[in-house]
Amino acid sequence: MKRTDYAGNITEEYLGQIVTVKGWVAKRRDKGGLVFIDVRDREGIVQIVVDQETASEKVTETSKAIRTEFVVEITGKVIERSNKNDNIKTGGVEIEAESIEVLSTSKTTPFEIKDGIETSDENRMRYRYLDLRRPEMLANLRLRHAITHSIREYMDDEGFIDVETPFLNRSTPEGARDYLVPSRVNKGEFYALPQSPQLMKQLLMTAGLDRYYQIVKCFRDEDLRGDRQPEFTQVDLETSFLSEEEIQTLVERMIAKVMKDVKGIDVTFPFSRMSYDDAMNFYGSDKPDTRYEMKLQDLTELAHTIDFKVFQDAVAVKAVVAKNLANQYSRKAIDKLAEQAKQNGAQGLAWVKVEQGVLSGSIAKFLSDKADAFVSELDLDENDLVLIVADKLNTANSALGSLRQTIAKEHNLIDSSKFNFLWVVDWPLFEWSEEEGRYMSAHHPFTLSTAETREFLTADGSSEDSDLQKVRAHAYDIVLNGYELGGGSLRINTRELQETMLKALGFKLEDAEEQFGFLLEALEYGFPPHGGLAIGLDRFVMLLAGKYNIREVIAFPKNNRAADPMTQAPSPVSQKQLDELHINTLE
Amino acid sequence: MKRTDYAGNITEEYLGQIVTVKGWVAKRRDKGGLVFIDVRDREGIVQIVVDQETASEKVTETSKAIRTEFVVEITGKVIERSNKNDNIKTGGVEIEAESIEVLSTSKTTPFEIKDGIETSDENRMRYRYLDLRRPEMLANLRLRHAITHSIREYMDDEGFIDVETPFLNRSTPEGARDYLVPSRVNKGEFYALPQSPQLMKQLLMTAGLDRYYQIVKCFRDEDLRGDRQPEFTQVDLETSFLSEEEIQTLVERMIAKVMKDVKGIDVTFPFSRMSYDDAMNFYGSDKPDTRYEMKLQDLTELAHTIDFKVFQDAVAVKAVVAKNLANQYSRKAIDKLAEQAKQNGAQGLAWVKVEQGVLSGSIAKFLSDKADAFVSELDLDENDLVLIVADKLNTANSALGSLRQTIAKEHNLIDSSKFNFLWVVDWPLFEWSEEEGRYMSAHHPFTLSTAETREFLTADGSSEDSDLQKVRAHAYDIVLNGYELGGGSLRINTRELQETMLKALGFKLEDAEEQFGFLLEALEYGFPPHGGLAIGLDRFVMLLAGKYNIREVIAFPKNNRAADPMTQAPSPVSQKQLDELHINTLE
Repeated sequence: MKRTDYAGNITEEYLGQIVTVKGWVAKRRDKGGLVFIDVRDREGIVQIVVDQETASEKVTETSKAIRTEFVVEITGKVIERSNKNDNIKTGGVEIEAESIEVLSTSKTTPFEIKDGIETSDENRMRYRYLDLRRPEMLANLRLRHAITHSIREYMDDEGFIDVETPFLNRSTPEGARDYLVPSRVNKGEFYALPQSPQLMKQLLMTAGLDRYYQIVKCFRDEDLRGDRQPEFTQVDLETSFLSEEEIQTLVERMIAKVMKDVKGIDVTFPFSRMSYDDAMNFYGSDKPDTRYEMKLQDLTELAHTIDFKVFQDAVAVKAVVAKNLANQYSRKAIDKLAEQAKQNGAQGLAWVKVEQGVLSGSIAKFLSDKADAFVSELDLDENDLVLIVADKLNTANSALGSLRQTIAKEHNLIDSSKFNFLWVVDWPLFEWSEEEGRYMSAHHPFTLSTAETREFLTADGSSEDSDLQKVRAHAYDIVLNGYELGGGSLRINTRELQETMLKALGFKLEDAEEQFGFLLEALEYGFPPHGGLAIGLDRFVMLLAGKYNIREVIAFPKNNRAADPMTQAPSPVSQKQLDELHINTLE
Repeated sequence: MKRTDYAGNITEEYLGQIVTVKGWVAKRRDKGGLVFIDVRDREGIVQIVVDQETASEKVTETSKAIRTEFVVEITGKVIERSNKNDNIKTGGVEIEAESIEVLSTSKTTPFEIKDGIETSDENRMRYRYLDLRRPEMLANLRLRHAITHSIREYMDDEGFIDVETPFLNRSTPEGARDYLVPSRVNKGEFYALPQSPQLMKQLLMTAGLDRYYQIVKCFRDEDLRGDRQPEFTQVDLETSFLSEEEIQTLVERMIAKVMKDVKGIDVTFPFSRMSYDDAMNFYGSDKPDTRYEMKLQDLTELAHTIDFKVFQDAVAVKAVVAKNLANQYSRKAIDKLAEQAKQNGAQGLAWVKVEQGVLSGSIAKFLSDKADAFVSELDLDENDLVLIVADKLNTANSALGSLRQTIAKEHNLIDSSKFNFLWVVDWPLFEWSEEEGRYMSAHHPFTLSTAETREFLTADGSSEDSDLQKVRAHAYDIVLNGYELGGGSLRINTRELQETMLKALGFKLEDAEEQFGFLLEALEYGFPPHGGLAIGLDRFVMLLAGKYNIREVIAFPKNNRAADPMTQAPSPVSQKQLDELHINTLE
């Protein structure tokens, strides 16, 4: 029989009609000669009733034999339900079964198919097809589709051309670690899976496409955390001839449409703009969560007048005030915060409490005659807790920014109904890498520097004091609730500037030529001014779904070992496969 | 200055207005004190005029300095053109330049940026960004987007959920050769790039999605031909609870929408259905081109009465008649056809011509008293050429099917304005592989056999005479103009049947468990009846673009060595990268 409608759609409009539904047995119970079966499909649940006195023997027998998660096809008359259930759409009716066919049987599932189950993430991934049967997981996948649908509608309407770029690319060591693919035909050579279609989309601009977009998988072989997966999805776009602001406006309108379409929320734009320096100075983060205040404050000037060597020697002394929370932080709790500050590079954490009008804490004794100035500078009240880091400016900012978030989360200072979109702009072009001992791209090596600071681009990047730190980028990140949603920039469009940039990054000319020769060459054939942006789709969906791990919005994610507990990928392969690829595994 | 509109959109509606356009210099010529510049962008070309008597010195100088493929920004007044050009949309106007800014310069391009150029494919790929500047290539990319846009609209409207499946999968040796990706974290293990998301989409059905689709890259490491690339794109869909016919109807309506949206053509459906056996018997192909007749004819019965041992011994004697073409085929031309027949497995090719009422040719002398029967059976007329293969039935069909196509192409028998969609149905479940010496899946190992023929599924597949050849599949291919556009099937939804199928394919139980254990396990938890289809997007776009190579509709394709002449991918990688992946290349 053909299905009349989804089970979840069988409402009063079908009253009196004979309908057929197909789905899974969500629940089955006997009650005084009646058997009730809840049939579930993607649209919801409908109740089936079998009256053993009036039903055929076959229907009665089948109704007794079926078990949870059997797949059934049920035909019957839609009747009014005596015991109405207002919590579900179909709660006013039930189907009086005239025939029940078992389409597929089921063993007892390893966990219950319902929302809010408690089982390990590993178990959920091992039986992902059962996990996805749970309505909340299905809702996440549908939200994801609703978001991409909304984005595509916008991009298509705005004249962006969806172009597929290759997955089998050339490996470029700049950036994160590549996933490699050995070539069978070209012995000893490898493709790399794209970390982003960056260069391809730039080439599409010089090809004249003017507006390109793609929703595309990208790959980074990095160690995994909650919001990282080996493969992730980018909403990738690029435009020619537009300014930074014009690109931002395009993106804002896209996001506003998505928010309206999928959340019914009116987002006002233009979004706020914050300079990178302000973000670091006030929030201690390049992706500030502006849903709550608790800004970092600059104590340097006052601190230099205090008779405490650590303060006097420090380049920067910064503070964050946890209002009315002093009594929530025991000595032990503060020690934990100090530990966190140290993990973020700070030498230590000083603290002051205002208790019954008196300042106490690790540096209270040094304040002496500066105590009033201290209270007034920070605008302190009873029961405030002040956390202070004296260090290099970046270190003080980052350490306190991290504490700011911890405290806000611990004490529910965040209004989780808010969606605070924000542009972080005026980025430095480079950032110092302690690990590499050199300046590296803050975004990527194709980012355009501002005309005003371009003179500093020729400096040597091997010392932290280099003039490179003065170079500013036409770069912009879009931030949502403390998460980096995406980032973009204007790009370099001349060979000369691109070569200067690569040199500043420490490339030797021949290496630059070897790896980026095709780009350098393309830059000589009328390359238009261009720029774009990429948004992390997984994170965007996660935030709109109100989840805290991108695995919740990915159909088949990998675990923290980059493995799939369901298929057991990755796996050993046959010697024949390795031979064909001219490779060997090492013992 | 902000661009007013695309150059190609500057028509009479802008007359008298000051506009700014940005684009590439397509042409520049001096003519009696006037400089004419054609500016090209993705929407077309507009003519700029600089009158050296009235223009500023700067504009005049710049107009003289610019060269082809420079990127320029030009502002000026739109005026009526004295010398109208009706061939282009903007032909009624020109822009009187008030300012010209050079945004980017260009060297002389290695080939001209215009349609129909003659340069090597390798050169076009080497400078792909210039090749794509040619209007016909841009049109191909835009057609591709128009097609995916139309498909997505349809799928979204029909309630299909777009779900992304993983690219890093488990390798399964059944099927084509996998591209492998070494795992860094899991030493000595490999992911495989998907040949199709087959198992994942089936799992989405048991997860209850009911309708899934995705437009997704897939990968096969096979040797390349004109219509093959290492990576290709599939329109992939799967449904639960539908019959073969219901799925076909869904697809027909999708294709009809695409044809209407992008070609303005009304396609009538339902499409024709042809059984696999009829396709082979009448067209010698499982993807018949039905735009022209010239069907294969069965001569077996008559041939067995003819005094010619080759005919009498053959299982099948089949013929194809090239009407009124005998005089077009010299002895040498026929030898070439015979060579082609042999390449398709035939022992030889017999032929007969009707010339001036007389039968001549390789077997004319054997016909003797059967000549009239022969003429009447094949309905021969003057100047007909008959090609005959006596062999095993499959061989005779395939060899003549191939000749049928060659002759049709050589003599323009094909109406290239037609789009003949066709379903090939009633497939065998297995096909004999000479190479492997066993029966293999005609589609894939998850295809559902028909209930009527399922009893033969238990046979041993290691002999060509096996009963396995009797098993029919719920499988269907969609064919367009002699190309396999896509294929699909209903799938197995019980563990028992899936195990029987794997056994018939020669799997040992433990190997089946090792590779497909997760699927076998999933089949035990209420797996719904389901089926779907995948369409090869590259080929679909190619056919609608009227091209003969899928490279024409792919932005950055690989060459026949699976390499990209532009980026030089694949390439050697560093020892550090190999070390991290625990692999070595072999000398």
